[in-house]
Amino acid sequence: MLYSVRMRAAQGGAHEQGGTHISGAERLVGEAEWKQVAAEMLERAVSHSKGSADFINLIVETVSRNNVQEITCLPIQSVAGSDVPAGRKAAQAELIKAGVAPAAASAGVAAVAGLQGSMRGAMVLCAKTGKRLDDSGERGIRVSRMDIADNQAYLNWLRRQGYGNMHIREALVLASKVLSAPGVVAELCWSDDPEYTTGYIASATVYTRFTNLKPYGCSIGGRVFFVKENTDLAQLTDYLQYRPVMVKVPAEETNDAVSR
Amino acid sequence: MLYSVRMRAAQGGAHEQGGTHISGAERLVGEAEWKQVAAEMLERAVSHSKGSADFINLIVETVSRNNVQEITCLPIQSVAGSDVPAGRKAAQAELIKAGVAPAAASAGVAAVAGLQGSMRGAMVLCAKTGKRLDDSGERGIRVSRMDIADNQAYLNWLRRQGYGNMHIREALVLASKVLSAPGVVAELCWSDDPEYTTGYIASATVYTRFTNLKPYGCSIGGRVFFVKENTDLAQLTDYLQYRPVMVKVPAEETNDAVSR
Repeated sequence: MLYSVRMRAAQGGAHEQGGTHISGAERLVGEAEWKQVAAEMLERAVSHSKGSADFINLIVETVSRNNVQEITCLPIQSVAGSDVPAGRKAAQAELIKAGVAPAAASAGVAAVAGLQGSMRGAMVLCAKTGKRLDDSGERGIRVSRMDIADNQAYLNWLRRQGYGNMHIREALVLASKVLSAPGVVAELCWSDDPEYTTGYIASATVYTRFTNLKPYGCSIGGRVFFVKENTDLAQLTDYLQYRPVMVKVPAEETNDAVSR
Repeated sequence: MLYSVRMRAAQGGAHEQGGTHISGAERLVGEAEWKQVAAEMLERAVSHSKGSADFINLIVETVSRNNVQEITCLPIQSVAGSDVPAGRKAAQAELIKAGVAPAAASAGVAAVAGLQGSMRGAMVLCAKTGKRLDDSGERGIRVSRMDIADNQAYLNWLRRQGYGNMHIREALVLASKVLSAPGVVAELCWSDDPEYTTGYIASATVYTRFTNLKPYGCSIGGRVFFVKENTDLAQLTDYLQYRPVMVKVPAEETNDAVSR
């Protein structure tokens, strides 16, 4: 049995009552780990750089191992941008390369840049027209029930590439699940952490980091999933939210880690 | 600042998705305590006599100390009943003594006895007619944001009277808040713990335990709040759910505990 542990925290009351989203977390862990993971999430909710939460919702739910889908983690590349306009321009080019129409790529960046507050979930946009397809409003579509299969191998793999921060650890797992979903062409994301300006574009083949996707100090972030026209939204959101997914580091890297 | 920590656990999925209610808990504690209390609640959710939960929802919310109302704990008396019919008859007599009309007292007992599953919250019945007044369905009206002001003094006070179990510790705090609410005449409750057959009637002046309010092995329990006709239900549920209440042990007992 696995345990889906998920947390969302807000300031100024619950999200449902207009509180500001402070932090969220998703893990899928074994029986020996879930209580510790839950404790860490509660700790994190009250020690986030965006401020201390005054509302925390933690959910623990069992998930059958039989139902788990294994996928491979996307490889990472990084692109240094001189400033935010250059970073966003490069991100749009990457979206287009992934199969998003130019107007839709531009609409996606504008959608995140235009947010009045951070979203807990993502907006779903048509990769061809840029039109928003989901009706989840300010809440957005959440991605749940995923984790890394072997955390230590993953951390070693990230560290060998020079990536040590928590943001990338979590975002890459999420993006790998998102890009394995039916109909998803690409993902665009930048963080709501005011100190973290790096965002990313994920495509079916690569997770590309851009160092300057938002101004330093900005505490509004968000996510866009670009999907093919005629994607079955109900099926997509069901997969993203309910299908348990375990992400493995690429095979050669696992072997490398084992041989150490 | 105080922390309202509350947990609800179910088996067979979330409560909202038809899962069976396994356990719930409500605490209102200081900053130094809340993480430990949260950990204990998670532990309890998976080690309940009704079974292990496969869904747990834990909420932590800050509450200003300025807004806290202090009330005094109800005194306790116990009535041994030879069997369930005798216990329920005695409980109905106690309800009538508290100001509930005979037909309403009988309707209240029948309402809990007739439940098809345990409720997370309580039914609100008119103390005169016995008619159910709330529209919360199977969910029921919850009581939140209350705790005992001095836990050690409380445990000492209970122990000196021969009460050592967790059920009474929690139920008495809840009943003391409920009976301090505007319009409430009495409360009837028996537990969903299959091993615990004792239930209680709380009135404005006393909390009376009856040893046989349900058959041993029965895992369905529930609560009824009897209220005066024309009680403002919105005001009542707001008080029960949102008003932070700290319950103190009766004064002479506190002094006694201090003098030890």
